[in-house]
Amino acid sequence: MPQPVDIVQKLSLVTEQWSPKVVARLNDYEIKVVKVQGEFVWHSHDDTDELFLVVDGVLTIQLHDGDVVLHPGQLYVVPKGVEHCPIADGEVHAVLIEPSGVANTGSAGGDRTAAYDDSLSSSAR
Amino acid sequence: MPQPVDIVQKLSLVTEQWSPKVVARLNDYEIKVVKVQGEFVWHSHDDTDELFLVVDGVLTIQLHDGDVVLHPGQLYVVPKGVEHCPIADGEVHAVLIEPSGVANTGSAGGDRTAAYDDSLSSSAR
Repeated sequence: MPQPVDIVQKLSLVTEQWSPKVVARLNDYEIKVVKVQGEFVWHSHDDTDELFLVVDGVLTIQLHDGDVVLHPGQLYVVPKGVEHCPIADGEVHAVLIEPSGVANTGSAGGDRTAAYDDSLSSSAR
Repeated sequence: MPQPVDIVQKLSLVTEQWSPKVVARLNDYEIKVVKVQGEFVWHSHDDTDELFLVVDGVLTIQLHDGDVVLHPGQLYVVPKGVEHCPIADGEVHAVLIEPSGVANTGSAGGDRTAAYDDSLSSSAR
């Protein structure tokens, strides 16, 4: 039987911050859930836009053009090639959508790069 | 200044049912909001998956394998080529994500086919 994906339920299974978990796929795109707190690293994705949708908390996406402040139910698409750095005072629960295989740190790399994890996906490989 | 997209605020601007409105773009994909009520038509999209995320109300996606019942905060990706027919007793507010240019009625066509509308997008063309 086909089953829905409950975003809050999936987020309840996430124990690590800054470690996106794939929960669904849309063609060659992935829908991920993530918990974040504090400041990430400045980075960009040279080949793709990246969608952030906040579910809980307040996420600020720092851009060189100014900050985008996202409350629950608000989304923002960071255009490809645009340097950005998410920051959150309290813990934020969010959904990310981007093509398969995109690293969370983009072209910046470094020790904040998360391992690929689709263990919360019903079609985990 | 870059601005967030508030899903509920965008939905508040939608006056017609079954008429998806583009509110954001992610590469060659579109994020749309839609209000639906009653039964749609059975159709499929031969070339693409389609993501449904319910924001308000209860949406049933009828499939030949069974029904998927989506409550707020739940999503489902209808695989490409799979016939489906959304149905809702009360009005449902939802987000759709699919590649640009996908018709709401897929290969079924007919008078339920909605005109393309990106007037709620900040980058309306």
